[in-house]
Amino acid sequence: MSFIASDAIRLRAVGSRLFPHNSQSEIRNPKFSPMSDQLRKRLFDELDAIRLIDPHSHIEPKSAASKTLADILGYHYYTELIHSAGMPRTEIEEPGLDPKEKVRRLVERFEPLRNTVQYSWLLELAREFFDFPAGEGLTTSNWEQLYDTATKKMAQPDWERQVLNRTKLDAVFLTNNFDDPLEGFDTSRYVPCLRTDDLVFHLGKPEVRERLEKASDSTVKDAVAVRTAIGKLFERFVSKGARACAISLPPNFTPTACSPSAADRALAALLQGSEPDHKNQTTLSHFVFWTLAEFCAEFKLPFDLMIGVNRAVYRGGVYQGQDLYDSRVSLIQYQELFNAFPQVTFPISVLASVTTQELVSYAWIFPNVVTNGHWWYSNTPAYIEQDAAARLEAVPQTKQIGYYSDAYKLEFCLPKFAMYKRILAKILAERFIIDRGWSEQQALTLGRRVLRGNVERIFNMR
Amino acid sequence: MSFIASDAIRLRAVGSRLFPHNSQSEIRNPKFSPMSDQLRKRLFDELDAIRLIDPHSHIEPKSAASKTLADILGYHYYTELIHSAGMPRTEIEEPGLDPKEKVRRLVERFEPLRNTVQYSWLLELAREFFDFPAGEGLTTSNWEQLYDTATKKMAQPDWERQVLNRTKLDAVFLTNNFDDPLEGFDTSRYVPCLRTDDLVFHLGKPEVRERLEKASDSTVKDAVAVRTAIGKLFERFVSKGARACAISLPPNFTPTACSPSAADRALAALLQGSEPDHKNQTTLSHFVFWTLAEFCAEFKLPFDLMIGVNRAVYRGGVYQGQDLYDSRVSLIQYQELFNAFPQVTFPISVLASVTTQELVSYAWIFPNVVTNGHWWYSNTPAYIEQDAAARLEAVPQTKQIGYYSDAYKLEFCLPKFAMYKRILAKILAERFIIDRGWSEQQALTLGRRVLRGNVERIFNMR
Amino acid sequence: MSFIASDAIRLRAVGSRLFPHNSQSEIRNPKFSPMSDQLRKRLFDELDAIRLIDPHSHIEPKSAASKTLADILGYHYYTELIHSAGMPRTEIEEPGLDPKEKVRRLVERFEPLRNTVQYSWLLELAREFFDFPAGEGLTTSNWEQLYDTATKKMAQPDWERQVLNRTKLDAVFLTNNFDDPLEGFDTSRYVPCLRTDDLVFHLGKPEVRERLEKASDSTVKDAVAVRTAIGKLFERFVSKGARACAISLPPNFTPTACSPSAADRALAALLQGSEPDHKNQTTLSHFVFWTLAEFCAEFKLPFDLMIGVNRAVYRGGVYQGQDLYDSRVSLIQYQELFNAFPQVTFPISVLASVTTQELVSYAWIFPNVVTNGHWWYSNTPAYIEQDAAARLEAVPQTKQIGYYSDAYKLEFCLPKFAMYKRILAKILAERFIIDRGWSEQQALTLGRRVLRGNVERIFNMR
Repeated sequence: MSFIASDAIRLRAVGSRLFPHNSQSEIRNPKFSPMSDQLRKRLFDELDAIRLIDPHSHIEPKSAASKTLADILGYHYYTELIHSAGMPRTEIEEPGLDPKEKVRRLVERFEPLRNTVQYSWLLELAREFFDFPAGEGLTTSNWEQLYDTATKKMAQPDWERQVLNRTKLDAVFLTNNFDDPLEGFDTSRYVPCLRTDDLVFHLGKPEVRERLEKASDSTVKDAVAVRTAIGKLFERFVSKGARACAISLPPNFTPTACSPSAADRALAALLQGSEPDHKNQTTLSHFVFWTLAEFCAEFKLPFDLMIGVNRAVYRGGVYQGQDLYDSRVSLIQYQELFNAFPQVTFPISVLASVTTQELVSYAWIFPNVVTNGHWWYSNTPAYIEQDAAARLEAVPQTKQIGYYSDAYKLEFCLPKFAMYKRILAKILAERFIIDRGWSEQQALTLGRRVLRGNVERIFNMR
Repeated sequence: MSFIASDAIRLRAVGSRLFPHNSQSEIRNPKFSPMSDQLRKRLFDELDAIRLIDPHSHIEPKSAASKTLADILGYHYYTELIHSAGMPRTEIEEPGLDPKEKVRRLVERFEPLRNTVQYSWLLELAREFFDFPAGEGLTTSNWEQLYDTATKKMAQPDWERQVLNRTKLDAVFLTNNFDDPLEGFDTSRYVPCLRTDDLVFHLGKPEVRERLEKASDSTVKDAVAVRTAIGKLFERFVSKGARACAISLPPNFTPTACSPSAADRALAALLQGSEPDHKNQTTLSHFVFWTLAEFCAEFKLPFDLMIGVNRAVYRGGVYQGQDLYDSRVSLIQYQELFNAFPQVTFPISVLASVTTQELVSYAWIFPNVVTNGHWWYSNTPAYIEQDAAARLEAVPQTKQIGYYSDAYKLEFCLPKFAMYKRILAKILAERFIIDRGWSEQQALTLGRRVLRGNVERIFNMR
Repeated sequence: MSFIASDAIRLRAVGSRLFPHNSQSEIRNPKFSPMSDQLRKRLFDELDAIRLIDPHSHIEPKSAASKTLADILGYHYYTELIHSAGMPRTEIEEPGLDPKEKVRRLVERFEPLRNTVQYSWLLELAREFFDFPAGEGLTTSNWEQLYDTATKKMAQPDWERQVLNRTKLDAVFLTNNFDDPLEGFDTSRYVPCLRTDDLVFHLGKPEVRERLEKASDSTVKDAVAVRTAIGKLFERFVSKGARACAISLPPNFTPTACSPSAADRALAALLQGSEPDHKNQTTLSHFVFWTLAEFCAEFKLPFDLMIGVNRAVYRGGVYQGQDLYDSRVSLIQYQELFNAFPQVTFPISVLASVTTQELVSYAWIFPNVVTNGHWWYSNTPAYIEQDAAARLEAVPQTKQIGYYSDAYKLEFCLPKFAMYKRILAKILAERFIIDRGWSEQQALTLGRRVLRGNVERIFNMR
């Protein structure tokens, strides 16, 4: 880390967003200003000028932007951290709670979170979109003004457009249930993505089978029928402009080919039984997963694998704040998949930072493995910095998708991408320009590639 | 790392302990002095002024300070490293060895250790407490003078008080066997802590059962009796001011509830058998561990879990220098425990640095999980720096216990805490003040919290 | 990272190789030059002056240097990355392909690799050995001139000597098959090393047994005969100046003692069966591995363990570009080995960076465990930096072998060692001289030890 305190001051004066503003800063009287801060600043400003495609989010296209600050503070990153710091779930999730009252309650309990990077996203977002003063924290004294300003701005008819423009966001990938009608929105702006967790892990449940039957207009009594039904989903999604198939996977999942007859037996047993049986569900999961990979090959869709999550570990947690993981997972579990589908591109996200080295190595060896973003519990600066540096120096530059927001509301794309771009600028400055003698143009070309170019090419956006 | 050589020189001149002194340094003629070193120095000096509570040690309260330098050099960190570097165990552990002769022998073999951070603790301790000259290493020429100076100082009647004062140490947590009488010392200075490894892992051994029977004045023939006996231990410990229950755990341990009847059967089998049987001991371990958690809930004691150690891996090693680990451990093993005891706080230490990311994530989700210090093989700067940064940016600031000394002798608290405070100052300077625009006051408030405030609050010291 | 852009410029002016040259750099007008860059530069220049012994390579002693640039670009690091980036294997490995045509084809596909550190080795090598201009990348416009220059230089009768001199390479360890005749080369320059993968893992195959019978002039019908045959290999290797026994091991291997009778049964079953049976091969592997350790003890040879590789994971990969790993491996698997052979030194390489902390801890505890280099997928700067720092601050300085090239051709020793020396200079500057107040002389003494001194001592080269 080569920046010094004085740099922060000086940069604020020239209006860069590289270092978050903080008017309370006590740093005074910079005596000099080294080249390195100008370098990092220049790189960030160039990276920050790039128009983005966000290759993974949970944005709801018909209500992409927020309506009130409760949509912002209700993000699970805040509710789960506030709950973890002591606020009872019942106070957070009280049915019928008025949005303003919800924000009032949450702000009262924000103090323990002020160190977190998640909190810094909130402040940056408030400054960038809602005129929140630089250097101020969100407090019981100022929240109401922020709330009212936000409500007013969010009510403007072009608010969504304003957010997209300020974020320089050309398109954002969605996470669509397999039975999503994909209608009523601009699919070139909000790009459909077929999410398949339910199909792979819950087809043993009657309600999921019913949804599949309805969505495919078919009956799914055996493996062949399952395959046919899934084929219809792909047809519909691709016809609506889908650019990826995606799934999140638990640490113990090992994809393997499964014969239709084995799948038939498993499905028959599940159809008879009252409760899904673990072994049969696993067989069916293998069959469905492999079938998805086959259709990705047929329809030329990349298959996003998000590897490593255990669902509902903390059963008393808030909504979306119950999942954790076991970091003991290996990409060796995916060797048969990668060998069997050389024609399918697998953009891979790993939940545990420790898996990153395997991801780097597998992407360096397998033509069909691509590194994808910094996911969830690995999406904090200390882990991003180590993981991104390792990728940038050993994976072919064409095989890296730098970042995605994973956001539920449009307003979060700006601060989350900004966090990544600051770290990318730091790595390019220190590890490429200084350590390896690269020119700034070379570094920026690499930066543009991982931020934008690869997203276009890998997901066939052009 | 933004400090430059000239800073070290300049800072020495103004008397900071931020950078260890070294008069042999050949760095000359600093041309300028950047702001960043002043920042890191200011932060360290402020952090260094904080009065400490050390929340985990192995201090023996009736002989807390050392008597001779042999107590210092006899620390297992030195004997095991010296043995690892080639000195036979028999020369180190010769029965009846005179302390001065022991030190003479060890100093002769210190050369291979001079690069280690453990050796730097020794030099800092010698400088701070025993007038050892800055910039000198411990050699066969100067050890005797140090030995004699130390012996003289240690013989002063208020030596213990001097060490406490110089270390700014208000209180230090002990590690007490369950049958420790806890008498004859000031329990507000030396805070009792119920250590439970023997109860959980060795109750199959007759001698442990006998100790438990004696300590609880009861007979432990069945599970109910075990529970009653443990309850008496908690009563006594809490009445004597205990502030925590603690245990170290092997990587393969997975806590689970165990019915009294299953525990009865296991205990009966163990009582009959000549040798403890692994399966029965495991059942009994589960029962005792769960019972401890229940009493922690009842007596409102935090339950320190130190996760990941394999005992006696190197059977030919020196005393306390035989333990190692398997880094393949996951906090997912503790999910049932964390769910079952929401009312118990679990300050968690992990032996392998790789487990830190899971610890960060579990503390971010589970209200009852707290991060605790940097343990043993993860207590070296490269690992502390990565681990502390990850915690400080993603775990609520109220849920982090920054550091404990793990010391056996009081003199080690100063250099071990100083190492941590240097790294903390570096992280606050680089990652909070510079990267995130924090003020120094904000950074120091966070630093004070993890160093002192949280210890007071989490362990109910106020 | 305390270097700033201006440093790079200034250092180029004074001719250091610390920062790779790049004439395209756009960094201009350095305003000042801090002490830290001079420090890092001074350290690198001193480290770069050290004459080297390379303790592990795959050099073929009778054709140690390259004949054409195809030998350089044919290194698996390039072919596998280029294949991973999209070039079909058949184009790379076309039988009978002319070397110049091969280079032409590869250069056309280099673009995706320009970010990789492996590519930076190539440029440094081209600049140092073949007058390639600083700041230029290898392109379709300039490759032919480089090819021709290289061919001319490589044809000089003393080319091998020139490369050795420029690299300051006194000796380099080989990787010899057990039936290598070890004749026709200078074994003090090219040091034999008994590689034993085939013996341990493939003795179930008739062709390996035949090779062993031939090499040992004996019949291997039972365990005793296997042992005798292996003893003859050791005799021959040691008589030819071998300095180490070596093996690479899969993540699931756990060495254990195996009785000759169990080995007999396993061998008998394998001799009868048409296909090697997994369980019997494992028994035989245990027997052979343990036997190797016994002979290492008898012949006083260090036993290099390279832990963690899974072979042929990507079956469609290019030659030597098919292996990957499962990072879930632990040194606890080796506890019985380390306890059983206190008299054997085990220089240990780990394939996954995450295993490094265990390696640090095991080397800190076990006298016979030594850290060895940065292997393969962990041989990139982000991992080397973290791993080397952790070792340098906690493993006795006498128990660390800093680096080996793993090269197949002599020309690669220079850029690979240079990469390591740059990182070593950075760690010594930042973590020892600045953070811990060491003098430059102290730091360089440590650097010389891990780069050269320990290699001499541990492998008995003096």
